[in-house]
Amino acid sequence: MKSGDSTTIDVPHHEASGGGGASKGKGAILTVPARQEKGGMRRGMAIIDVVLRIGAIMAALAAAAIMGTSDQNLPFFTQFFQFEASYDDMPSFQFFLIAMSLVAGYLVLSVPFSIVSIVRPHASGIRLLLLILDVVALTLATSAAGAATAIVYLAHNGNSSSNWLAICNQFGDFCKTVSSAVVASFVTVVTVMFMILLSALALRKH
Amino acid sequence: MKSGDSTTIDVPHHEASGGGGASKGKGAILTVPARQEKGGMRRGMAIIDVVLRIGAIMAALAAAAIMGTSDQNLPFFTQFFQFEASYDDMPSFQFFLIAMSLVAGYLVLSVPFSIVSIVRPHASGIRLLLLILDVVALTLATSAAGAATAIVYLAHNGNSSSNWLAICNQFGDFCKTVSSAVVASFVTVVTVMFMILLSALALRKH
Repeated sequence: MKSGDSTTIDVPHHEASGGGGASKGKGAILTVPARQEKGGMRRGMAIIDVVLRIGAIMAALAAAAIMGTSDQNLPFFTQFFQFEASYDDMPSFQFFLIAMSLVAGYLVLSVPFSIVSIVRPHASGIRLLLLILDVVALTLATSAAGAATAIVYLAHNGNSSSNWLAICNQFGDFCKTVSSAVVASFVTVVTVMFMILLSALALRKH
Repeated sequence: MKSGDSTTIDVPHHEASGGGGASKGKGAILTVPARQEKGGMRRGMAIIDVVLRIGAIMAALAAAAIMGTSDQNLPFFTQFFQFEASYDDMPSFQFFLIAMSLVAGYLVLSVPFSIVSIVRPHASGIRLLLLILDVVALTLATSAAGAATAIVYLAHNGNSSSNWLAICNQFGDFCKTVSSAVVASFVTVVTVMFMILLSALALRKH
């Protein structure tokens, strides 16, 4: 609002000597909306960015939380060990948990910067910083999602050539939980991609 | 060069009525280097972008080619089947091959657009398009790399909780080849990340 008002004062200054009262008013009407529209569009983008960011935080937290609480004990056990499946057993799932937690943590920290770019829609430095860090977060989230997907697929289907049997027959609940976490991570990935798209559009010079 | 010259003509136009010949010449000297420097920096970025793109093409092609030629027959066989390991046996490796081929194909197609932005460093539309498509390519390459890494890790180390045995004892050469492909894919990922960083810097309005 403040920057918009200061523009209204600036523009008629150049035409003040030539035009009368009527044309002065007209000049203000013609020029101000163009400037406000551009700032307004960027501000709108920044607001969508914050909303997407909150969505991505929730998806990343959900992915990490679902993965972190995934364990299943089978109702029977032998003398030596109990049959239990947990994310701890698979390095890929551990990596998934760590990566998604890191992404969620980064996204939470990035929200204040995103809010600053609502207040100051023309600050391109913040937007550039967010874009670059978003790309790093995207890479982390995507690699975690890819690795977990490969293992979940293997757990569901097994692999005959390497004699890796499907474990989802025994640990059905564990597989369902882990699959949900993977789906949540893909939601995170898609949301972060849209955030990057939005940042790139906002960075583009007009 | 053309756009720089057109600016030299433009700028003194506004001052032509007031200033003499001397101030006209001075105005031209002051404005042209600033404009050329900015364009030159962008042109330099565009050249680096093309170089990075060619590097990424080679890494992606190497990853796809290494994975595509990875198979190993063991020197003994039973009556029923021969012991053979190939990327065909693992869905993750098939996905890896397809994804890296797609990324390499996209990167080849993107080189002409990148060259256009050397010739016209101020065309931000092309740069925006390349940035968005690069992000998509990055996601594809990263997910393939993540999935293949998870399976390669499993092939090397096995997993005791799910009774998946390491197969690299038998298929050592196969594992080495596949690991090289994974390393090449990570080189691709890092190169594409730098390309995105460069595009974002070039997009930033000055």
